Amino acid sequence: MAKLTANSYGKSAVRLTKVVRSAALHQIFEMDVEIILEGAFEAVYTAGDNSACVPTDTMKNTVYALAKKHDFDAPERFAILLAEHFVGRFPQVSAATATIEQITWDRIQVVGKSHEHSFVKGAGKRLAIAREARTGGTIVHGGIRDLEVVKTTKSGFTGFPRDEYTTLKETTDRIFGTSIEAVWTYRPGALEFNPTYDAARTAILEVFATHDSLGVQQTIFEMGQQVLKAAGAITEISFTMPNQHRILANLEPFNLTNNNEIFVNTSEPFGLIRGTILRD
Amino acid sequence: MAKLTANSYGKSAVRLTKVVRSAALHQIFEMDVEIILEGAFEAVYTAGDNSACVPTDTMKNTVYALAKKHDFDAPERFAILLAEHFVGRFPQVSAATATIEQITWDRIQVVGKSHEHSFVKGAGKRLAIAREARTGGTIVHGGIRDLEVVKTTKSGFTGFPRDEYTTLKETTDRIFGTSIEAVWTYRPGALEFNPTYDAARTAILEVFATHDSLGVQQTIFEMGQQVLKAAGAITEISFTMPNQHRILANLEPFNLTNNNEIFVNTSEPFGLIRGTILRD
Amino acid sequence: MAKLTANSYGKSAVRLTKVVRSAALHQIFEMDVEIILEGAFEAVYTAGDNSACVPTDTMKNTVYALAKKHDFDAPERFAILLAEHFVGRFPQVSAATATIEQITWDRIQVVGKSHEHSFVKGAGKRLAIAREARTGGTIVHGGIRDLEVVKTTKSGFTGFPRDEYTTLKETTDRIFGTSIEAVWTYRPGALEFNPTYDAARTAILEVFATHDSLGVQQTIFEMGQQVLKAAGAITEISFTMPNQHRILANLEPFNLTNNNEIFVNTSEPFGLIRGTILRD
Amino acid sequence: MAKLTANSYGKSAVRLTKVVRSAALHQIFEMDVEIILEGAFEAVYTAGDNSACVPTDTMKNTVYALAKKHDFDAPERFAILLAEHFVGRFPQVSAATATIEQITWDRIQVVGKSHEHSFVKGAGKRLAIAREARTGGTIVHGGIRDLEVVKTTKSGFTGFPRDEYTTLKETTDRIFGTSIEAVWTYRPGALEFNPTYDAARTAILEVFATHDSLGVQQTIFEMGQQVLKAAGAITEISFTMPNQHRILANLEPFNLTNNNEIFVNTSEPFGLIRGTILRD
Repeated sequence: MAKLTANSYGKSAVRLTKVVRSAALHQIFEMDVEIILEGAFEAVYTAGDNSACVPTDTMKNTVYALAKKHDFDAPERFAILLAEHFVGRFPQVSAATATIEQITWDRIQVVGKSHEHSFVKGAGKRLAIAREARTGGTIVHGGIRDLEVVKTTKSGFTGFPRDEYTTLKETTDRIFGTSIEAVWTYRPGALEFNPTYDAARTAILEVFATHDSLGVQQTIFEMGQQVLKAAGAITEISFTMPNQHRILANLEPFNLTNNNEIFVNTSEPFGLIRGTILRD
Repeated sequence: MAKLTANSYGKSAVRLTKVVRSAALHQIFEMDVEIILEGAFEAVYTAGDNSACVPTDTMKNTVYALAKKHDFDAPERFAILLAEHFVGRFPQVSAATATIEQITWDRIQVVGKSHEHSFVKGAGKRLAIAREARTGGTIVHGGIRDLEVVKTTKSGFTGFPRDEYTTLKETTDRIFGTSIEAVWTYRPGALEFNPTYDAARTAILEVFATHDSLGVQQTIFEMGQQVLKAAGAITEISFTMPNQHRILANLEPFNLTNNNEIFVNTSEPFGLIRGTILRD
Repeated sequence: MAKLTANSYGKSAVRLTKVVRSAALHQIFEMDVEIILEGAFEAVYTAGDNSACVPTDTMKNTVYALAKKHDFDAPERFAILLAEHFVGRFPQVSAATATIEQITWDRIQVVGKSHEHSFVKGAGKRLAIAREARTGGTIVHGGIRDLEVVKTTKSGFTGFPRDEYTTLKETTDRIFGTSIEAVWTYRPGALEFNPTYDAARTAILEVFATHDSLGVQQTIFEMGQQVLKAAGAITEISFTMPNQHRILANLEPFNLTNNNEIFVNTSEPFGLIRGTILRD
Repeated sequence: MAKLTANSYGKSAVRLTKVVRSAALHQIFEMDVEIILEGAFEAVYTAGDNSACVPTDTMKNTVYALAKKHDFDAPERFAILLAEHFVGRFPQVSAATATIEQITWDRIQVVGKSHEHSFVKGAGKRLAIAREARTGGTIVHGGIRDLEVVKTTKSGFTGFPRDEYTTLKETTDRIFGTSIEAVWTYRPGALEFNPTYDAARTAILEVFATHDSLGVQQTIFEMGQQVLKAAGAITEISFTMPNQHRILANLEPFNLTNNNEIFVNTSEPFGLIRGTILRD
């Protein structure tokens, strides 16, 4: 009377720091890795038969061991290695997904010079996702998350429909603050992960800074267009952006005029806007 | 050269408390509501034309206004009201999804008696989701989230495959701790939301307590089976459960024997197990 | 030209589960322990001379080892054991403070009966703090934290002073929601930790439920009085309570009357009220 | 039989953005403000007599109104304004403390040039605290918080005492990661807040980067010394620094040698080190 349908399992939050000391200039990769497996796991659920159930503890060990055994210069490379490993090693696995969130460490500046082995946390995190399917090949994603930005002008919101529950005033000059999450798909076979990440991040920040925004949606589409223009390895990009409202403070009760100067930051509720832009 | 594909937008974290004072025994609904719309919003993204763009601020106002205008005794009812409202009101909306997370307030016991208007936060949150599509009707989900539980015995993990990265020992007696998330689908037309929630919650907790677990996966399947048996309005249920490991502390360096008494709680990494069980 | 003054160090977030299996009814202690040492550590700071510096890793190991070696039925007992250990063992330590936050696990009810070894997370966390000074003896504190409560009536706020920045309306019927933190001091030599905790928790919840509150401050003082009355081992109790505002939703723009029914929950800003009540 | 002793109250998490648009180059101050009052509030607690109880809602309004009425170029100036206001306005207030946490927004770089009105979140938050006492004057503090840093070498920990609970190995080359919190006191009358903040932040980061650390304690003392040398307006500085351990991964079971390359990041437990350095 009951049947198992969709299922998957894995290990989350495998945290890893890899230091590359081959030169005086140390490199650091700090990553939070998740491994998720799909496959022939029905009996694990329905009968408690664990003979196909690769322990999640083994997944964790594998992450640390493969980080040691292989050189990589981009988290996408490590994600691919991991996804391929689990499909290659275990016949019961039909697909493996490795998701990596990488801390972006910037070099500390000492008297105007980038330090060799000391770092301060940078803005935003980098994402890399590889999904290897036994039939169907590999899909690789890159991305950025928690990139918090704000602009104090050149953002408006007008022309929207009104009904009896609408109290929002139109504005041609508001503050626009958000935390950018973007996830893109690499064309099959792409290997230029670091230049793509750099180009996409730069395009996203420059559009955010310079675009005269008529709405978060329009900014998202423009970001997507510019990323596709700047990064030929990307076939598609999806954005998720909250609208972190800063509401004009009501100073009228105090006989003060608020010339777009004083705002109340609110963390809830927030707008939530999503859009995917495809190379056409 | 660039084309908008998937897109949606809405308002998240609309927080609301509704107090029903019709009797001496007050009722309280504390909810965190999200409204997401899909529809003909292309020009909002591609041209900054907001003429179709229902403001998320209007969504927020609508949540508060409809909470006032309508009586409801279950969050599912309110979610349905909200989803239907946006599809009914705005022709450009092809589908609306209302997601509600409800705080479960328990009555404070005063000298053994449930108090009329004072509450203490209960275990777990209740979920209700309604998606109304212009073509295709309404799908309603219920659920529970953040239900944190632990059992100190009757949980094991043996018989799993080993490779060179496997160091985990087999165990027939470990601690099993998790935070249960379950989301179920109601059969079309179901209205018995509160009895279903109660039956599902009870079944989940009783299986967790009494099941002799051979693995998290097996417990998930057994929970699903028992929920389907106890709650006839549910057609399908999906679980997401982390394995919040408590690792046997290594006391050998101190010449102490650890008879399954002292454990190190770890928050990372954690196993992550998912399964969907369908009424067959 | 620079001199070290106040200093201390230790280990935070030592997470531990102890299971007592001596009877069919298992007991579980899940604790988050912090050890802080003060003493003759100047050279550690000023010269990098670590000869006096007990490693924080040793503190962690000691927590697990002493949890194994000693029976205890209350977190206060374990805190005292730990604080005494570090002062007794290391002559350079002038004072040691052990702070324990304990998860309150409630037994899962199965067909109306408390289960022997399965638990669901309860409301609020229990605190226990012991500070052992080489000269000056031991001070022991108990407490409760994160006890989230709400009452839907019998709370007002009137008669407050007004100036030109005051817009708040007087109200005799508002919602009062808070997260209670209370820390008390045991009289020297007290050993009745569990009955005291139970009596204090009950008094706090019952006052919250039944008190006709003229303000958070008044409720705090009444809670303190009732705790001192109910628990003879407590000499002093301090409360920290946020006022988690639920603001009456403004439904006038929608021609709806809000009879104290619909409220907007806000997480910021929040009132923050503190008071200490001493047995006189 | 019960007496009120220590007490205070106020408003926390008053979030504010102030935009200064006087030039093409916009300035943004995003602050989280807390106001705490001490004074003659006994009757508020003991009798529910609110005639002395300045509403926390009024505090919130005052923060927004004073932000509009006054120009300031440093959060310390605004904190002083606020603390003085409440002591000056309300005779029942014996002391007022304003605590400000400021987001550090960096200008987005567009084609190598700092943008005029667009920002990305910077590393660490800035702190400013002013306490105005009716008798005793003003004390002003500055600081920095959540400044997350890591160095991959030039950090060791040796020469520490051992007992039977010590398993830690000595190391002359470990990773040192922390989240720096520093709070300093300005000499009475100091006004050079921004240069002091810049000098202190630079000194802290440069010491972290370049110091050959024998322990977190030694690094703290060296930071303190260098801050006092670089910033003449500071009389005293206190640090709170967690030791965010990265543990060498044990790869021996996999026949791999870990040459200080692969580390397991742990969020718990963590060392916690505090020290205050006074200008002598």
